[in-house]
Amino acid sequence: MRMIDIIQKKRDGLALTKAETTWLIDQYATGEIPDYQMSAWAMAVYFQGMTKAEIADLTMAMVATGEQIDLSEIPGIKVDKHSTGGVGDKVTLILAPLVASFGVAVAKMSGRGLGHTGGTIDKLESIHGFQVERTQADFVQQVKAIGISVIGQSDDLVKADKLLYALRDVTATVDIIPLIASSIMSKKIAAGSDAILLDVTVGSGAFMKNMTDARLLAQTMVDLGNAVGRKTVAVITDMRQPLGTTIGNRLEIAESLSVLQGGGSPELRQFIAELAQIMLSLAGVEKSLAAILENLSNGAALAKFKQMITAQGGDVNELLTSPEHDTRFSKTVVSTQAGYITSFDALSAGLLAMRAGAGRAVKSDALDLDAGLRIFKKIGEPVEIGEPLFEILYNKADFDADKESQVLRDAISISDDKIEIKEIVEIIK
Amino acid sequence: MRMIDIIQKKRDGLALTKAETTWLIDQYATGEIPDYQMSAWAMAVYFQGMTKAEIADLTMAMVATGEQIDLSEIPGIKVDKHSTGGVGDKVTLILAPLVASFGVAVAKMSGRGLGHTGGTIDKLESIHGFQVERTQADFVQQVKAIGISVIGQSDDLVKADKLLYALRDVTATVDIIPLIASSIMSKKIAAGSDAILLDVTVGSGAFMKNMTDARLLAQTMVDLGNAVGRKTVAVITDMRQPLGTTIGNRLEIAESLSVLQGGGSPELRQFIAELAQIMLSLAGVEKSLAAILENLSNGAALAKFKQMITAQGGDVNELLTSPEHDTRFSKTVVSTQAGYITSFDALSAGLLAMRAGAGRAVKSDALDLDAGLRIFKKIGEPVEIGEPLFEILYNKADFDADKESQVLRDAISISDDKIEIKEIVEIIK
Repeated sequence: MRMIDIIQKKRDGLALTKAETTWLIDQYATGEIPDYQMSAWAMAVYFQGMTKAEIADLTMAMVATGEQIDLSEIPGIKVDKHSTGGVGDKVTLILAPLVASFGVAVAKMSGRGLGHTGGTIDKLESIHGFQVERTQADFVQQVKAIGISVIGQSDDLVKADKLLYALRDVTATVDIIPLIASSIMSKKIAAGSDAILLDVTVGSGAFMKNMTDARLLAQTMVDLGNAVGRKTVAVITDMRQPLGTTIGNRLEIAESLSVLQGGGSPELRQFIAELAQIMLSLAGVEKSLAAILENLSNGAALAKFKQMITAQGGDVNELLTSPEHDTRFSKTVVSTQAGYITSFDALSAGLLAMRAGAGRAVKSDALDLDAGLRIFKKIGEPVEIGEPLFEILYNKADFDADKESQVLRDAISISDDKIEIKEIVEIIK
Repeated sequence: MRMIDIIQKKRDGLALTKAETTWLIDQYATGEIPDYQMSAWAMAVYFQGMTKAEIADLTMAMVATGEQIDLSEIPGIKVDKHSTGGVGDKVTLILAPLVASFGVAVAKMSGRGLGHTGGTIDKLESIHGFQVERTQADFVQQVKAIGISVIGQSDDLVKADKLLYALRDVTATVDIIPLIASSIMSKKIAAGSDAILLDVTVGSGAFMKNMTDARLLAQTMVDLGNAVGRKTVAVITDMRQPLGTTIGNRLEIAESLSVLQGGGSPELRQFIAELAQIMLSLAGVEKSLAAILENLSNGAALAKFKQMITAQGGDVNELLTSPEHDTRFSKTVVSTQAGYITSFDALSAGLLAMRAGAGRAVKSDALDLDAGLRIFKKIGEPVEIGEPLFEILYNKADFDADKESQVLRDAISISDDKIEIKEIVEIIK
């Protein structure tokens, strides 16, 4: 085979065979195919797309280039969950112990945050002592023992994806649905789960800005998962505004704890219960929403959360005693207008939290785990003049809170008309 | 500027500014932009094309990355001529001295052959002692002294084109009209001429396989040349069959000599006279076809040819005494059918001559200057059973003449219906 023929075939709108796709990825992962041929292929894919079979072949070829986690020692159907990235997205922190509280094993690898979206692993590290790096054996052992573990994603998964993603990032070939789908799904498949729940976010704070793209990505991943023997369901969720009422690592741990203690906002509880219902169903366990919400209120999910923290070296007492940590500075912005919130731009909120210290602009940035944003009014809620809209928490003396808060304030709209939004927009099976 | 933004802009179908295009080529030529970004840009150009302004900007930016020949010392308008590649194409060998015989200076750089198309420089090297490498000063001096010089193209012209062409060659981005046009024209412009005659070949033996592509390439180059201040005319010429009656280096020199001595086929004489008329007109000299043909018959063009050979160290006497050289082997193929020749595939003929030793499959191949093909019957000519169609001349003992000749025989059609073809299909100004 010659790479030039493969590029030309794709450029001319033809589908590659499984042998061609496998060869392409193998040779790229081993350095036999140079970046300049791979980027020409990726650009051809931008214009010509890929068939379902090609996407499945590509994904499985990518999986084969790295470590594959073996969860077979853990009894039952293992269900993974993935979000395409949100602002204030603390779903895993609540959902994982909630699902585990029904006896369904959760063996989950999560990522770190970059840009305006946060990462579960960073959030867990804001719990004193919590260890996110575990050997595969320890990871499996913990899930067998207590039914839950959330750790950082192994660096050895899907070598080809790392190379290809880095290349796409500098060649204007990131926003290609088939390549996004195979990048996400290859890591989920390599992580060893039997079934996958995908949370495809849509809106200003998300990677997918409109429903058309979100639906296409969701459907592509669902088809792909099912084509390679992983039962896959996708929910499309609204990311016009941040999820819940906090953005920031420790702040989101505290909010999650509150939900697990029976508190938190009703919308967030409902959303997570709906996701849990799908995950449980994928594991073959059918539960009513009422039963699931009950496990958030009766301490069952909280107990799993505490068990996990303890098993991974975290300080549960410190967390329970002072869930939130003060920062050196804070700034609260109040409304100068009465009405209903009609927009609270997730991207602006995420970027503000990032600049306040809660996120990384580039991979090497250090995080301020305590910094972030508290949100007091969400879309659909009434607000009076003088009522607080949000509060920025930060430690950096050089953070220009006045200027930054004004940017976010400008991204909040208040109107006489009440609008309602629902977290889950659509379910794709 | 960032290359990723430029790739994305092109990918999204927008035109680059002059500043962007210039930066792109500058940075690529100096190695600042890596191949993997350049190939993604080239593939985006495949799908999105370029505006006339972009093509002109690209071409002039490429010209600036290498040496530019200064012909200003030579009086008058300097006209260059370029062919997009033909089989048996000895046009320059006859046209250059013919134009020079009217007092119009010809300062021409030519290339070597690759694949099934021959190169003027290789042909000239089949003249004993002929030197194709000259300093720029010597080149200009010779043209001032005798009005004509044909030398090898400097390696220092258009550095960016060399890099970009090598990259396109391995990334399925060769067949992109704007990039082909700028590659050809950048070298012509760097070579210093004031006006350009382009011979865009079309047909099996040519790079452009159909009239639509040939017309588009011709029009693109004419627009480009005129946009950057070089008066440019293109002729589209038929390359379904080889040009003239020989393919091979020394063979074509001998055929050219024959035309310059008042012989050769009437079709070839007519074709070259028509080209000469356009070149002379570009130089401001209007001549009738009769006057031009007269200079082929009266020895005026031949005298210029001999002057040039002598000035560049070639042995005129040896050439005149034995224009053709014997080879160790030859094979003549006769017709087993009567009728008119309706096709004589140029590509098959070119590849056969190449394999017999007259051409290079790869750049490093050595040439057999005496090997090649004699063609006895061309499209439109009648043929009887037993009359020779072609003769292969070769020196390689391992050349499978039986098999090879059968391939070409299969690419010749004979029918009861006579068809006529004309070399110049269309003129584009």
